[in-house]
Amino acid sequence: MPHIKLGNDAPGILSLFIYRPETAKPLSDLAEVLLRGPSSLTRGERELIAAHVSTLNDCDFCAGSHAAFAAAQLPEGMALVDQVRADPASAPVSAKLGALLRIAAAVQRSGKDVRTAEIDAAREAGATDLEIHDTVLIAAAFCMFNRYVDGLSTTVPEDPAGYTAMADVIVTTGYATALG
Amino acid sequence: MPHIKLGNDAPGILSLFIYRPETAKPLSDLAEVLLRGPSSLTRGERELIAAHVSTLNDCDFCAGSHAAFAAAQLPEGMALVDQVRADPASAPVSAKLGALLRIAAAVQRSGKDVRTAEIDAAREAGATDLEIHDTVLIAAAFCMFNRYVDGLSTTVPEDPAGYTAMADVIVTTGYATALG
Repeated sequence: MPHIKLGNDAPGILSLFIYRPETAKPLSDLAEVLLRGPSSLTRGERELIAAHVSTLNDCDFCAGSHAAFAAAQLPEGMALVDQVRADPASAPVSAKLGALLRIAAAVQRSGKDVRTAEIDAAREAGATDLEIHDTVLIAAAFCMFNRYVDGLSTTVPEDPAGYTAMADVIVTTGYATALG
Repeated sequence: MPHIKLGNDAPGILSLFIYRPETAKPLSDLAEVLLRGPSSLTRGERELIAAHVSTLNDCDFCAGSHAAFAAAQLPEGMALVDQVRADPASAPVSAKLGALLRIAAAVQRSGKDVRTAEIDAAREAGATDLEIHDTVLIAAAFCMFNRYVDGLSTTVPEDPAGYTAMADVIVTTGYATALG
């Protein structure tokens, strides 16, 4: 049960977006530009980074939903998402994506845990400065979203099919419409 | 030295805002509504929560700057800010603000660390649901801002007077103009 009276039965962050539209707007704008805006990282790769960080933060709603959003936008589907969430070191991703996932995991622990060695490894694997920037910000943003969702004890869908339905909306129309 | 080439010499998050204006907009919009928008918490109280979380996350730039922004907007000035940052349990704040600072500290560790006991204590001290919501989101947002600033190893002003100058801008015109 949520810690405060939200006045609606929507799950996870959706209930908070309805409760406080003033903060929902910049939060969904941020998700839209980071996860769906123009980028040399695919939408599936960016959602995979979000799902990975949410898994590390043990946030059921964000991990479940962004795993579904990643699976819907990656050629390898949920099989790859499950592998990354279970053991990123052995998952069959490109050297560049593997290095970016390691940067994201460092950010999840602390910003100061991102060392020159991790940055150099990503660059050697072909990552651009902008890709490194966006990876750090995606990981940091999910350290916010995860704490927001769990810090107010929002509800989690009982049926995982709920995440697949959400994925249809996000993939088709994006995060701005998730507010409507 | 920053991990990536930012193309400017601005300190902390300002250098990232200049580097990536597409993400700067929702990030500064979020700071503006949370820290300066209409609220029954004063701007000084909200900046104090931000400075407290940034101190716990060991983020020098965010802790130094938001301490200055809090001091500029609290009747008790920097003396109170220093006490809260050093030992919040003994700092002379209201029962309500003390309870909200404890919720913020729980969020800093993990969203799941916010228990019913902390929420009940805040409510008994007079906190509204909206004040609890905003405290959780401010704390969560600074877990993002702190990781963003340190995860890319942005620079910190050598002279703390730099934070006082920033405070003048923020207090007078807000976070949106910090972009310009």
